[in-house]
Amino acid sequence: MNRIKTAIVGASGYTGIELLRLLLGHPGVELVAVTSRQEAGKSLGSVFPRFQKAAGSELSFIEPDPDAIAATGAQAAFLALPHGVAAEIARALLARGLRVIDLSADFRLHDAAVYEEFYGHAHPATDLLGDAVYGLPEVRAEKIRTANLVASPGCYPTSIMLPLLPLLREKLIDPATIVANSMSGVSGAGRKADLSLLFCECNESTRAYGVPKHRHLSEIEQELSIAAGETVVVSFIPHLIPVNSGIVTTTTAKLRSGVTPESIGKALENAYSTQPFVRLLGRGGCADSKNVTRTNFIDIGWQTDPRTGRVILMSAEDNLGKGAGGQAVQSFNLMFGLSETDGLQNF
Amino acid sequence: MNRIKTAIVGASGYTGIELLRLLLGHPGVELVAVTSRQEAGKSLGSVFPRFQKAAGSELSFIEPDPDAIAATGAQAAFLALPHGVAAEIARALLARGLRVIDLSADFRLHDAAVYEEFYGHAHPATDLLGDAVYGLPEVRAEKIRTANLVASPGCYPTSIMLPLLPLLREKLIDPATIVANSMSGVSGAGRKADLSLLFCECNESTRAYGVPKHRHLSEIEQELSIAAGETVVVSFIPHLIPVNSGIVTTTTAKLRSGVTPESIGKALENAYSTQPFVRLLGRGGCADSKNVTRTNFIDIGWQTDPRTGRVILMSAEDNLGKGAGGQAVQSFNLMFGLSETDGLQNF
Amino acid sequence: MNRIKTAIVGASGYTGIELLRLLLGHPGVELVAVTSRQEAGKSLGSVFPRFQKAAGSELSFIEPDPDAIAATGAQAAFLALPHGVAAEIARALLARGLRVIDLSADFRLHDAAVYEEFYGHAHPATDLLGDAVYGLPEVRAEKIRTANLVASPGCYPTSIMLPLLPLLREKLIDPATIVANSMSGVSGAGRKADLSLLFCECNESTRAYGVPKHRHLSEIEQELSIAAGETVVVSFIPHLIPVNSGIVTTTTAKLRSGVTPESIGKALENAYSTQPFVRLLGRGGCADSKNVTRTNFIDIGWQTDPRTGRVILMSAEDNLGKGAGGQAVQSFNLMFGLSETDGLQNF
Amino acid sequence: MNRIKTAIVGASGYTGIELLRLLLGHPGVELVAVTSRQEAGKSLGSVFPRFQKAAGSELSFIEPDPDAIAATGAQAAFLALPHGVAAEIARALLARGLRVIDLSADFRLHDAAVYEEFYGHAHPATDLLGDAVYGLPEVRAEKIRTANLVASPGCYPTSIMLPLLPLLREKLIDPATIVANSMSGVSGAGRKADLSLLFCECNESTRAYGVPKHRHLSEIEQELSIAAGETVVVSFIPHLIPVNSGIVTTTTAKLRSGVTPESIGKALENAYSTQPFVRLLGRGGCADSKNVTRTNFIDIGWQTDPRTGRVILMSAEDNLGKGAGGQAVQSFNLMFGLSETDGLQNF
Repeated sequence: MNRIKTAIVGASGYTGIELLRLLLGHPGVELVAVTSRQEAGKSLGSVFPRFQKAAGSELSFIEPDPDAIAATGAQAAFLALPHGVAAEIARALLARGLRVIDLSADFRLHDAAVYEEFYGHAHPATDLLGDAVYGLPEVRAEKIRTANLVASPGCYPTSIMLPLLPLLREKLIDPATIVANSMSGVSGAGRKADLSLLFCECNESTRAYGVPKHRHLSEIEQELSIAAGETVVVSFIPHLIPVNSGIVTTTTAKLRSGVTPESIGKALENAYSTQPFVRLLGRGGCADSKNVTRTNFIDIGWQTDPRTGRVILMSAEDNLGKGAGGQAVQSFNLMFGLSETDGLQNF
Repeated sequence: MNRIKTAIVGASGYTGIELLRLLLGHPGVELVAVTSRQEAGKSLGSVFPRFQKAAGSELSFIEPDPDAIAATGAQAAFLALPHGVAAEIARALLARGLRVIDLSADFRLHDAAVYEEFYGHAHPATDLLGDAVYGLPEVRAEKIRTANLVASPGCYPTSIMLPLLPLLREKLIDPATIVANSMSGVSGAGRKADLSLLFCECNESTRAYGVPKHRHLSEIEQELSIAAGETVVVSFIPHLIPVNSGIVTTTTAKLRSGVTPESIGKALENAYSTQPFVRLLGRGGCADSKNVTRTNFIDIGWQTDPRTGRVILMSAEDNLGKGAGGQAVQSFNLMFGLSETDGLQNF
Repeated sequence: MNRIKTAIVGASGYTGIELLRLLLGHPGVELVAVTSRQEAGKSLGSVFPRFQKAAGSELSFIEPDPDAIAATGAQAAFLALPHGVAAEIARALLARGLRVIDLSADFRLHDAAVYEEFYGHAHPATDLLGDAVYGLPEVRAEKIRTANLVASPGCYPTSIMLPLLPLLREKLIDPATIVANSMSGVSGAGRKADLSLLFCECNESTRAYGVPKHRHLSEIEQELSIAAGETVVVSFIPHLIPVNSGIVTTTTAKLRSGVTPESIGKALENAYSTQPFVRLLGRGGCADSKNVTRTNFIDIGWQTDPRTGRVILMSAEDNLGKGAGGQAVQSFNLMFGLSETDGLQNF
Repeated sequence: MNRIKTAIVGASGYTGIELLRLLLGHPGVELVAVTSRQEAGKSLGSVFPRFQKAAGSELSFIEPDPDAIAATGAQAAFLALPHGVAAEIARALLARGLRVIDLSADFRLHDAAVYEEFYGHAHPATDLLGDAVYGLPEVRAEKIRTANLVASPGCYPTSIMLPLLPLLREKLIDPATIVANSMSGVSGAGRKADLSLLFCECNESTRAYGVPKHRHLSEIEQELSIAAGETVVVSFIPHLIPVNSGIVTTTTAKLRSGVTPESIGKALENAYSTQPFVRLLGRGGCADSKNVTRTNFIDIGWQTDPRTGRVILMSAEDNLGKGAGGQAVQSFNLMFGLSETDGLQNF
């Protein structure tokens, strides 16, 4: 098989490292370029001892220069860059014929005004918004296959949307009553020298943050609204917990009148029973993040509560896996006609 | 000052250990009896090396025999026993003239039928229910002062009720919309040799459990209903996170029409500004469990969300402190006319 | 390629789970039998949610019956059983034509008297000791290739022996001065419902244990003595630290007179530069367990101290990987003519 | 009782925070000044939410100006500053009549040349070296009582020296064979925004560092040499482990010929049985850091190994407690004629 020549732009953060891990072991990928301003010139194996002796670890980091990346013959590029920065390099790489999987927020929103509202600056490339596909493979596989620009979803949104989408589509719940609480590992906050992320500040600690209007709400509500066929506004409260990676999300919503527990189970089954990376735990199944770390799986359990008339959705994913790098590779597989599970068969 | 002769019945679980820690350092307490079936005959310091060289650590564990306990001259007894077991020993100790602070669920509910519904067996001492005071000092200090039997609240309930009670009393929120998500340290699950509580099963893991009808709902709803003046039914989802101790609870509810953010802050201030163990973090304050571990404090922050019309209440306490042992000592201080903060001035 | 039909006997402990993880993803393996007395009848995916949706996870646990295992057509069996128990089933499987990789201590020692001294009971199968090969692939690959019974080394011994063996062979250090201190993750203590292994007993804790005569000393000294050509007796102090897996070992020894730092580096290079799973970090390299978790690598760094005349050897491995399951698979690969790195290419 | 007016200079690092915690609760202390360049002007309670509602938490941070500190009437100052910086402020405060407990390395070494060798710059105040007392209360209580300048020992040194000193004094071990391995919590590395100290870089990780010549060797060897009556050079290998605080040190040394195990126990008993903060665990006692965290205790266990002729010393302390803030307060108590255990009676 001809391996797809692939670049990772911004490969020294936690998402970039996860992409490295996945792509170094991907049977259909030849890694031809990895970029990092601060590590340029050093080999991958010297910067990240974990990857020493991996085939490909002798590759050296380069500056994120579009011409240099294109010169390696790269056909695909993963962007693991801050929002606002990704758009420009995406444009340059698209112009040079690469297909781009962007893990930032730059192309996730259809509406530039919403972007500006949530991200605090004008959208950097409104003309490209129409081309971008929001890369949730369980929902939009066909569009992803042919896309040149995939906006890979955020970590929290994935864990919140996948359980909710089928219930909204089938009008089983009241969209005005959705409350999502998420607990995320510290890697979700990024790899930056910040006092609040020190071991001693996070260990033996848990706390909510980013209330009431975390940026991820913008893409969550966009996708939930599409599924519901009406505008959906939700409460979302993220929490930091002392694990390296893993997100557990618990979402509650009022069942519409007359909806049975069975119909919840059936809706999830209909949506996901053939999906390779969604594991349905059934009624009463409490998703545990330790079962999904370092995989591309999302586990989904649920319960109904006759006392309150609410459904409780419990999902678990790895914020770096299905929540970031794994899902991006899943989209990549679709884009390049590979098996959807290639390079993601780790447990 | 004459020290109060005090017993701890069931002193080898995590709550019992916390009571030991607090009472060994309490200036108004003389520990005269500690019981543990499996450790009977051994000294406190030999069973728990942490307490070696503490004044009082030479005391030996005895069997939980009411006569033996009474014979030590004990005036007060803390019970850290499983529900169903505590009632019997409480009765025996009350009969012998001791005042009892029970940390089990046996005397928390006014209604024996609710007890049976949630705990799965008939209430073991219905005749005593009328004498018991639910020991939330911020709400019921006067009754606690004169009580002979205090039912100290559960860990989750304390963290859920304290932020909600003033808002319900002042009718600022819609009681039908309350959703509480809690994250608890593993000590909350008890000190028992259970595979699911092993280090490697809890570390790098988080998960919901006990949905949809955790036992603590019974006391939560009892107290919320009293405050609201109507029957309140809530959603409560507990989660286990990998810390030794600490609970963070995030509660959302719809604001009643016309309620301003300011009125939330004012209601909390009115209720708690003079309370020694409630720390109000104000609007936008996200309570962090690391600030309360090993103390009797509960930190409460809040935010309102104009997009959804909900208030977000964020509280943090130590499940072994304000959620168990600390709060029990706070009630004890009231019962015996001590300063409410005696023995709880640690940071 | 014909996949090797393979059994795991004792697949519900942490080593068994790691073998499951590795063999479910091994391209040259068809898992045909997994045994567990307590899980017999249940499918692999239902017992271990992590493996759900893995190809092979529908396999059901069976009782550890040799005939039933042989009836599956298994050509190879990994034994992850307690010492004393493994020998009997090894004999039965060998008699049925399977090749056996035993991860217990039963066949690691050449001398049954040493076994009895360290394990406290008579050796259960002295007649088989002559057939067993101590499975350290970096030292004994040729014998492993043709062995029918491989005794896979212990976790601590691997991390201690690999750095020391070349230095002893080349007589660079004084064998009488060897002191090894190891820090191990809690999974090394096994998956058993024991109070001392609870999350709250291990988290925020570290301690030595098993001094002065841990069982692993027997195999360590056996192999070091072979390399040194003389009887070697060492100090070994294991410690438990709050991580799931990973061992770091720091070993000091006096350099023989006239030995230069360069000769240390050269001895390690000569021994391991072509080995796929040994990564030499060079002089001053401090091995970090986080770089080897979930891999079969052992990282080795070293430093000399002119002030004391000692060499400091620092090694890191995953106690479940190179220290147990990974190394056993590495031996399996050699035994069955596969590439040594098959199924172990994860990072 | 008149409380001693006390200042903490450099109160925003982990050692400073521990001093705050101890002194806010110390019955003989009135905290009159706390300094921090970056927090100047803010109240203690607003910077550290943990201390809110503590009596004294309304105190505001000031700049570390000697005149301003002296103007508060402070009689004593604790310095929790980097080495090289502490000396100057110590001199200024001594000149203003304060007694100083310095927790940096600036006054720990008698020999300025050794300071320069280990710290890489000339000693900043050689004229004061003669006045400084190395503040190990178990060894030098009398000198501490009258000292105006106490150099409080480092965290690692305390855990290494206390077990060894009696054995060296009584010539029970061969000083040339001492090897100490320490495992320290991450707070020992300080509170600074450094990538290597992030949660995700330390969690699930352990590693040696600072070999072969950690700075603490200078004071360790100074004190061991005094006790031995000869120059002692030792191997010391520190390791970082994923706990907030706590140090466990394991030290091995050859017993001198004819030394019995009993004489080890007796030497430790003679030295420490009346010491309030040393807990002897006896032969076979393996010190566990979880028993000493947040206390001023050091636990010491030991074992002898007839196979190697070595003694194994195992000690545990809190690096912020007995290893830093607690021990400094213990010296302070001696200096000001208080009970040695005042303010340190927490468990």
